[in-house]
Amino acid sequence: MTQIYNKVALIGLGLIAGSIGLAMKRAGLSGEIRGHARSSETRDTALSLGLVDKIFDTAAEAVEGADLVVLCVPVGVMGNVASSIVSSLKAGAVVSDVGSVKAKVIEMVGIHMPKDVHFIPAHPIAGTENSGPNAGFAELFDGKWTILTPAGDASEDEVAKLRTFWEKLGANVDVMEPERHDLVLSVTSHVPHLIAYTMVGVADDLERVTDKEVIEFSTGGFRDFTRIAASDPTMWRDVFLNNKEATLDILGRFTEELFDLQRAIRRGDGEQLFEHFTRTRAIRRSIIEAGHDTPADDFGRAGTKSR
Amino acid sequence: MTQIYNKVALIGLGLIAGSIGLAMKRAGLSGEIRGHARSSETRDTALSLGLVDKIFDTAAEAVEGADLVVLCVPVGVMGNVASSIVSSLKAGAVVSDVGSVKAKVIEMVGIHMPKDVHFIPAHPIAGTENSGPNAGFAELFDGKWTILTPAGDASEDEVAKLRTFWEKLGANVDVMEPERHDLVLSVTSHVPHLIAYTMVGVADDLERVTDKEVIEFSTGGFRDFTRIAASDPTMWRDVFLNNKEATLDILGRFTEELFDLQRAIRRGDGEQLFEHFTRTRAIRRSIIEAGHDTPADDFGRAGTKSR
Repeated sequence: MTQIYNKVALIGLGLIAGSIGLAMKRAGLSGEIRGHARSSETRDTALSLGLVDKIFDTAAEAVEGADLVVLCVPVGVMGNVASSIVSSLKAGAVVSDVGSVKAKVIEMVGIHMPKDVHFIPAHPIAGTENSGPNAGFAELFDGKWTILTPAGDASEDEVAKLRTFWEKLGANVDVMEPERHDLVLSVTSHVPHLIAYTMVGVADDLERVTDKEVIEFSTGGFRDFTRIAASDPTMWRDVFLNNKEATLDILGRFTEELFDLQRAIRRGDGEQLFEHFTRTRAIRRSIIEAGHDTPADDFGRAGTKSR
Repeated sequence: MTQIYNKVALIGLGLIAGSIGLAMKRAGLSGEIRGHARSSETRDTALSLGLVDKIFDTAAEAVEGADLVVLCVPVGVMGNVASSIVSSLKAGAVVSDVGSVKAKVIEMVGIHMPKDVHFIPAHPIAGTENSGPNAGFAELFDGKWTILTPAGDASEDEVAKLRTFWEKLGANVDVMEPERHDLVLSVTSHVPHLIAYTMVGVADDLERVTDKEVIEFSTGGFRDFTRIAASDPTMWRDVFLNNKEATLDILGRFTEELFDLQRAIRRGDGEQLFEHFTRTRAIRRSIIEAGHDTPADDFGRAGTKSR
């Protein structure tokens, strides 16, 4: 099979990079996968799991000769990592990333990019509540969207190549303005995570209700929140610090609506509650119809029940 | 097998009653299952699915001669239904329910109960986002908790019998004060549902983000909220109207915490965010260790991926 990129360097070897490595091998896209992670333990794990072919002690060494470099580190350190590889990048190389925030990443990474390198930011909207190199799997991106947010002067050919690369990993690919990406994701991902983190924290803090009670009676809805609130703390800290504006904007809308429903409860306005709860059912149906979730009860939770 | 109750009447034939009927048959507890639902279509479905053995046009007829009557209707109509069966109840019968709210149900149903009937309220903490008689299945209660909230003067023998009944349906059984039940459930179920309903409504309303975008990019966390927000609107309207005090109390705590995290985001306080996000991971681990959820990625979502 013709390789899209002969040498690919993955910087940061967690859930996403590990899944990229495995999905590349599944697709036969394994010219040479080079990798670097800050911790030696992660480097050893990544190599022994076969997520990468070659491992390097520094990011600069890993990117040498690479045709594609993918930054898979938390958003908060993207700038530093970018700065550390600049002088080792091959002329004509494509530099991309997998950060959940785009405008700030473009600002922080873009400033370091040499003229002879193509910088094409990307965000695969895929992940699980688990993190680290052991959490990766080849099917992670299948049927999920990866969003590219190239700058206006990005080479069309290089954008097309990166699109093909992600499609071969199993993803659907869309191109979007970075600011639009950050707004849309604040609705579909960032604010839901913050809310889940908040609710789980409230339950944990509440002295009147024991942790045992919270855990035993969690099947009434709360346990779905705990899955989201178990996601990687570093990643999420950086998301909120770097998508501040859109997060605060959507949070404002959320509290406005929450207060409206809270007022309906206080006043005993059953009609308003019923109308709201009916409307939200339709969105669920659309997500299932679009193939983005299972229609099975309770997500068809493995091991918790059968039908 | 010795029957715990010779004749059992299920009033209201949705997800919970249907699952009770099927779980009774699975356990060999099928002396005679009598049922009633307001809609003739539901009655026909329940009979043809074998959720009940005999179907009746009125609740009063269904409870005739029943040793156990379980009210499986939305909390808001419990009082009316209770009033309609009073004169048909057999002396010594046990009347129970499956309402998600207990103090108000006790008030609304208890007032109608004759002296020679044992009223023992119950709440199985089990359910899915689906509703109606077709949604029921025999395994729904397996390993889940059912909470009994008997009044102080309830017969110990009758409480023990009802406990055994629920255990044979697969449930773990706990006994609790109704007010405590309502507080604990507001944390583990009611407020999480309200929050999910709110967030899904915000996404649906937001003119700047299209429904198509919300649906396609929902895999970043939002789709978990849509499952919860697809639950039965009538049931949830009644829960909030009838557990007003605890809901508003916990909502107050929630917004307090949310504003605190919001302030941390605005001020760029990464340390506070990181600490909060780390703490919430521990709760998830405890829920998995308690066997109340699967450790599989993404709940092991059926049909969305394999590993």
